[in-house]
Amino acid sequence: MGKFGMLLNTMRILLIVSSALVLASLAAAQPQHGLNLMPMPSSVQAGVGQMPVDRSFSVAITGSRDATLERGVQRFVAELSRETGMFLKQQPAGSANPTLLIHAVHGSEKVQRLGEDESYELVINPSGAKLTAPTPLGVLHGLQTFLQLVETTTTGFAVPVVTIKDQPRFPWRGLLIDVGRHFIPLDVLKRNLDGMAAVKMNVLHWHLYDNEGFRVESKRFPQLQESGSDGLYYTQDEIREFVAYARDRGIRVVPEFEMPGHSRSLFAGYPELASGPGPYTIDPGGADAVMDPTREETYKFIDKFIDEMAKLFPDNYFHIGGDEVNGHQWDANPKIQAFIHAHGMKNNQDLQAYFNQRLQKILSKHHKIMMGWDEVLHPDLPKTVVVQSWRGQQSLATAAQQGYSGLLSFGYYLDLMWPASRHYAVDPMSGAAASLNQEERSRILGGEACMWSEWVTPENIDSRIWPRNAAIAERLWSPPEVQDPDSMYTRLAELSWRLEWLGLTHRSALIPALHRMAGTDEVAALRTLAEIVEPVKDYTRMNSLKTTWDFRGPLNRLVDVARPESDQARHFRDSVQAYIGSGYTNRAAEGEIRTLLAAWRDNDAKLRPLLEQSSLLHELVPLSEYLATLGVAGSFALDHLDKSAPSPESWRAQQLALLERAKTPEADLLLIVVVPVQQLIEASAGEAQKPSSP
Amino acid sequence: MGKFGMLLNTMRILLIVSSALVLASLAAAQPQHGLNLMPMPSSVQAGVGQMPVDRSFSVAITGSRDATLERGVQRFVAELSRETGMFLKQQPAGSANPTLLIHAVHGSEKVQRLGEDESYELVINPSGAKLTAPTPLGVLHGLQTFLQLVETTTTGFAVPVVTIKDQPRFPWRGLLIDVGRHFIPLDVLKRNLDGMAAVKMNVLHWHLYDNEGFRVESKRFPQLQESGSDGLYYTQDEIREFVAYARDRGIRVVPEFEMPGHSRSLFAGYPELASGPGPYTIDPGGADAVMDPTREETYKFIDKFIDEMAKLFPDNYFHIGGDEVNGHQWDANPKIQAFIHAHGMKNNQDLQAYFNQRLQKILSKHHKIMMGWDEVLHPDLPKTVVVQSWRGQQSLATAAQQGYSGLLSFGYYLDLMWPASRHYAVDPMSGAAASLNQEERSRILGGEACMWSEWVTPENIDSRIWPRNAAIAERLWSPPEVQDPDSMYTRLAELSWRLEWLGLTHRSALIPALHRMAGTDEVAALRTLAEIVEPVKDYTRMNSLKTTWDFRGPLNRLVDVARPESDQARHFRDSVQAYIGSGYTNRAAEGEIRTLLAAWRDNDAKLRPLLEQSSLLHELVPLSEYLATLGVAGSFALDHLDKSAPSPESWRAQQLALLERAKTPEADLLLIVVVPVQQLIEASAGEAQKPSSP
Repeated sequence: MGKFGMLLNTMRILLIVSSALVLASLAAAQPQHGLNLMPMPSSVQAGVGQMPVDRSFSVAITGSRDATLERGVQRFVAELSRETGMFLKQQPAGSANPTLLIHAVHGSEKVQRLGEDESYELVINPSGAKLTAPTPLGVLHGLQTFLQLVETTTTGFAVPVVTIKDQPRFPWRGLLIDVGRHFIPLDVLKRNLDGMAAVKMNVLHWHLYDNEGFRVESKRFPQLQESGSDGLYYTQDEIREFVAYARDRGIRVVPEFEMPGHSRSLFAGYPELASGPGPYTIDPGGADAVMDPTREETYKFIDKFIDEMAKLFPDNYFHIGGDEVNGHQWDANPKIQAFIHAHGMKNNQDLQAYFNQRLQKILSKHHKIMMGWDEVLHPDLPKTVVVQSWRGQQSLATAAQQGYSGLLSFGYYLDLMWPASRHYAVDPMSGAAASLNQEERSRILGGEACMWSEWVTPENIDSRIWPRNAAIAERLWSPPEVQDPDSMYTRLAELSWRLEWLGLTHRSALIPALHRMAGTDEVAALRTLAEIVEPVKDYTRMNSLKTTWDFRGPLNRLVDVARPESDQARHFRDSVQAYIGSGYTNRAAEGEIRTLLAAWRDNDAKLRPLLEQSSLLHELVPLSEYLATLGVAGSFALDHLDKSAPSPESWRAQQLALLERAKTPEADLLLIVVVPVQQLIEASAGEAQKPSSP
Repeated sequence: MGKFGMLLNTMRILLIVSSALVLASLAAAQPQHGLNLMPMPSSVQAGVGQMPVDRSFSVAITGSRDATLERGVQRFVAELSRETGMFLKQQPAGSANPTLLIHAVHGSEKVQRLGEDESYELVINPSGAKLTAPTPLGVLHGLQTFLQLVETTTTGFAVPVVTIKDQPRFPWRGLLIDVGRHFIPLDVLKRNLDGMAAVKMNVLHWHLYDNEGFRVESKRFPQLQESGSDGLYYTQDEIREFVAYARDRGIRVVPEFEMPGHSRSLFAGYPELASGPGPYTIDPGGADAVMDPTREETYKFIDKFIDEMAKLFPDNYFHIGGDEVNGHQWDANPKIQAFIHAHGMKNNQDLQAYFNQRLQKILSKHHKIMMGWDEVLHPDLPKTVVVQSWRGQQSLATAAQQGYSGLLSFGYYLDLMWPASRHYAVDPMSGAAASLNQEERSRILGGEACMWSEWVTPENIDSRIWPRNAAIAERLWSPPEVQDPDSMYTRLAELSWRLEWLGLTHRSALIPALHRMAGTDEVAALRTLAEIVEPVKDYTRMNSLKTTWDFRGPLNRLVDVARPESDQARHFRDSVQAYIGSGYTNRAAEGEIRTLLAAWRDNDAKLRPLLEQSSLLHELVPLSEYLATLGVAGSFALDHLDKSAPSPESWRAQQLALLERAKTPEADLLLIVVVPVQQLIEASAGEAQKPSSP
């Protein structure tokens, strides 16, 4: 999906325009209560005082109760035990005075539906708490809110007195995980489901195969997994257990099986389905391959295959991909071209529409609603089809106007390594969607973050998804007015370490990776560098490859584990802004800047021997040198600002030229603090010269 | 087992004597090759050059191959992938020129036996490697050695050219994990099995119940788990899967079911088995309870129970505990006293021996060999019984002289929070065992580290077991001459971070725990303190309790997560020794000392606000103050040493008095760097006064 830069410039422009509009048109209604909740509930009324959470904590369930609810409550108690280090009673009590009373009006649906009521109300008083919800889904969300409310106090643990009424803004709040390019084991996926539940996401969009690998066991067509993978796939038993695991957490699992493109791995076992002669393997650089939509055998295969998969995946929705169909194979096949002309079609797009119509009928027969990417949109398709947009709000708005439901994924691609704030600013209802009428607006179901896995492994996937995914989760859950990035970052920092209690490793996995690269326990200096770099953005890494991208290539460089967004760099930037904004009088900010600059200045000497002795680290030498340069230059500029003495102009010119070079990616990494240091240097010119963009 | 301090003084004296003997009598034959292997193989011949480990790495299996071996090889490749970040081929190749050729002579036994040949030979040349072994067990060990040999180099990854011939010193190298006091989930146990396999341990001694909880599902006697636990137990399916997991890693699982004592949880469901009237619950402070060995119903129950458990646990050995039988209930029961007299027994010990004889016959009927703690030793028992000694080498030697096989656990209690070096110095063949003849010596099968779980949770258990357990593993595997603690610590540090790749959290779990206590992400100052304290030793924590120990009590204080042995404290101690030993001229050591002292001096001011706002941290205020005092006093002493100017005598007297107070435990923690700072202060008196013990 969308790894080509073609549309990127358009995307960027759209984004900048739409973000600006959003920021300008809405007053940022920010929470005054200071509670570290994420996503922010739609209504929070803070009270006075708190309710202790101590060893006597107990839960009681009234109203409807079913196994899903009971397991959810048990997990809640286990989580609360972990948060507090107290061994709490695992079983719900029937006691008359529970600490937390849970009341669900209705039981769980057998298969979780889109649009079920997910609201809840949580009332906490000093003497007890009550959580009520129309459905167990609401209870699950309310319990996550309760967990986030738990604080360490001077007397123990407690939750604040508060009344929260909450429901989601959008009914579809998803995360796509691509397990085609790189296989991700189920335990890793499960901890990510736990993370999704913590931020109230409710759809895992499981991109189950792509050119590089078919990851599902098919009993009817076993060559799918046997020829179409390197042995890494999920058995049907595993999938059933996984879907149940997700369902227990209020998460639907929507499978995606790409057709007719992105499906080379499928042809490895069944070459007769392809439009070209092959041969087909999953090896890198293999033939560009698309299904042959002109043969009836193709539809017979699809019918049998969907029959099998429809039973395995109980969700009502079934994603058929449909994106980025490259017409080369169709153009090159005279029989296919003859078919196009014989059926009065104009071009390959019409052929794909014909294919999608056939596909839609098969899915409908198996009681599934078809979903696809932007490219499936065609007036011949029934309005039940759901369009997922990787192209932008315009595409989504057009679909909505035509009567199709849609989801936004444009702006939510986690693999592009954007900062959380940039994803956060993308709103499904902004841009072209803002001018839709009420009925059309209701067709925008929500959105999905996308974790495409070209550069992803079981080791680094958590750090690509978290914590940034939580910002997208908030965009899709919370009222549109919730959009202050500072508040978001404050709450994200809190959430981030809490997420590690669920087993996620987005913070902790860095250190073992540094150990591998260094081959030693002494990684402090390497960590200093690692904390201040970010992987290159967008598709730069893919585009700068000198050979064909190889999914079997090692992913063991710093770029593979460096965090997409450096907290330290952001804090440094903020300190520099605060310092400059204060007219160089903010001593606290200056102190923080100085400490970091000094650490960077001294780091290269410590780090260099390590970089020299490891092939995996050698490429970092220029970055480490640049970082030292930043440290020296920044300190020098600061000294002058401190004394209100302008820095020498020739020195500034020289340093700024050096800094331009430091902006160039090295080892696919960006030294993300160049710009604020540049601002310090520019500022050190003195009063006469204004800082570039304080 | 043995949580009473009664024997501790004796133990300590014995230990000091025996360590001294060992150190004095054996030349420390230390490895010259510098390879970071642990446990050290019995023979290592280092060559010149290395063999690259790159993307083309392949494995081939010749000779015997079975599913256990193949799964072991697959895990090896997966581990190597993780170590290197390269996606290696998961399936063994049949290729003519594999990178690593594996040859096992024989296949796996259905049930792993004590004393199977575990030897292997690993030959690495620049162009290829070969691993040969009589059995798959040897192959598994050799693969672990290979993994430890992988290094990061200037050109990629490589293993050195080397010839290793290796076999264990003792056939029984175990780790006991007590899941009775606190339940430990299977995923946590599994990662510990992975760690055991990495250090070539081959027995998990599973202490499956104790007064506080019965952790195994019995289908015949379901009240065992239902009344005898808080709902936390392993199902039989889970146990079978777990035993298979262990067996795949060359690890036998020996179950322990305590009889006739330590078994209150058993009486919760079956009070008729007890010697006293009850009632019985698992609640803290419950009645002291022992089985009634005078009733035939007791043996009928045991027979049926063992029949069920013998099938569930395939190992030949079956541990019946048998320790710390408190005679109170027997004394108080007139029928039991009458039975003793009627059968011509002298005392309760004779009654226990009678019970053990009956038990042994039942076990024998179910084809199990009986094991028990020291107390089971009685001349009436057959020589097949294996004695596990928590009392010391004397007890073990006595058993061996009487013809019984035995295991040492004295000196290997991980819950006593000793440093690794202290465990490392304990040798099953030292002390009284040193004077045994050859035949008697052969009865000493090895030893077991013991992880008693009074203060253990799923969160902190890894840090209690690792890395210290690896020192015990080396003692039991490597030749007795391998005993230089410096070499051990160097290799342990390397192993320690590699163990985290297996999923162990002994290093990483500290940070989430600090977050909980602090309630914030800003834990740097708290970490500075946490890194320099150690939990109190031996049974001090238990003995200083003001109320009855309660297994349901929260374990969320710093003592619960502080590492048993502070690496930083050890390094500081070493630096002080080096500095003093150099006549105060070693500038590198001085620099390290100064840096740490300054950090400690400044830490209290940063940490204090956090300590004030959290009930879990408040108890640390005195420790933080003492640490600042150490920083100030140590720096002052250093200044004088630097200038060769004696420090003022009155200042020294005052500081030394202060330091004496700082030696007192606070919050069940020890500030472990008091002594080296004391040495600096004493040294600062000048030439006239010799430092106390440099």
